[in-house]
Amino acid sequence: MLFRQMFDSESSTYTYLLADLEQKEAILVDPVLEQVERDLKLLQELGLTLRYCLETHIHADHITGTGKLRELTGCLGILPENAQAECADRHIQDEETLKLGTIIIKAIATPGHTDSHMAYLVNGERVLTGDALFVRGCGRTDFQNGNAGTLYNSVTKKLFTLPDATLVYPAHDYKGHTVSTIGEEKQWNPRFANRDKHNFIELMNNLNLSDPKKMMEAVPANELCGNAIAVSS
Amino acid sequence: MLFRQMFDSESSTYTYLLADLEQKEAILVDPVLEQVERDLKLLQELGLTLRYCLETHIHADHITGTGKLRELTGCLGILPENAQAECADRHIQDEETLKLGTIIIKAIATPGHTDSHMAYLVNGERVLTGDALFVRGCGRTDFQNGNAGTLYNSVTKKLFTLPDATLVYPAHDYKGHTVSTIGEEKQWNPRFANRDKHNFIELMNNLNLSDPKKMMEAVPANELCGNAIAVSS
Repeated sequence: MLFRQMFDSESSTYTYLLADLEQKEAILVDPVLEQVERDLKLLQELGLTLRYCLETHIHADHITGTGKLRELTGCLGILPENAQAECADRHIQDEETLKLGTIIIKAIATPGHTDSHMAYLVNGERVLTGDALFVRGCGRTDFQNGNAGTLYNSVTKKLFTLPDATLVYPAHDYKGHTVSTIGEEKQWNPRFANRDKHNFIELMNNLNLSDPKKMMEAVPANELCGNAIAVSS
Repeated sequence: MLFRQMFDSESSTYTYLLADLEQKEAILVDPVLEQVERDLKLLQELGLTLRYCLETHIHADHITGTGKLRELTGCLGILPENAQAECADRHIQDEETLKLGTIIIKAIATPGHTDSHMAYLVNGERVLTGDALFVRGCGRTDFQNGNAGTLYNSVTKKLFTLPDATLVYPAHDYKGHTVSTIGEEKQWNPRFANRDKHNFIELMNNLNLSDPKKMMEAVPANELCGNAIAVSS
């Protein structure tokens, strides 16, 4: 399996390319509209056919590249079940697996940052945690039906029950970290380590963050899978 | 072995943490002054003792974290042979190996971006290419005794003779790539693929780049290993 982490510096978003090198087919997780050209070039250079664009959730900080990639490659756009986006070609459910050659992706429902959010466990060895869990942090819970208590349960009762050695690949990082492990996050993530649910909720409800710059544009566009019509409206 | 890639967004620099998890000892390659606190925190959380700070070359775009890390941890600062920095605790020569537990680092002299530059082959499977080779690019050759012809030879006659599957980890990236392979770069790097030495020299000599923002500050500071005296002068 080829695994490639890519970064969009404007939104600090990580996009992940997974590919089966026998079948020469690929999946992009959380592609970013502004990076579609870069991603397509890499796919072409590696001789890969894009089969799926998979989202961890409906993003508020960037417009997804899925709509454009679907238009240009014919790939399928997959969103978590219950995501408010009728444009999706497919929805993926909790504990459902998506297979592509030797790649086995298991969806883990991890709501709380948004009400429909999946983490994706790849071949049992690494987990793409979206905005549920960052390296020493987590996504905010103050919009898109976010709920701090729900996020606490998602992280501590689901992600933190994966083996300690599982590699953690988040959807964002703001300090230059690229990867961590479940064991490290259980021990050192300041949002969860030595913090009970009540304490976490209090912390999250008092972050007083300003809205993401692109939120008013990104959420409606992503509810249309980032299709051109949404981007230009 | 633990291998961790970290990013400094201001200078687009990658720092690499290598650690032997039995001995609990670590090496940082190309640390950045502004990220010393982050790097120390990670070392501490992982229970690692920093043994070496290793530089690929004397940088012009950021001040090294080596001086501060040496002061705070007692690690040794290692620079390529011929680097104009008397502050180094040790110099490493072409084809010399540096061992730390199960980590075996082989230095590969790859001058051209600067006149003293090493790439580091780690356990035969991944190469930290410094500014000699980027993902689909390479370092500039117009200062610090850089020489385009020399860089062409370093990349095509040394790095490109490594096995195709060798992972390429550069010292910088400006487009969000994190890693590549020697095979990919041989085929797709626009600076080298289908380009002879003469053509490469012409290309590099006509880039007309402005100097790095921090160059006047960074080079003299790095010639003193980023020691506090240099930083404040």
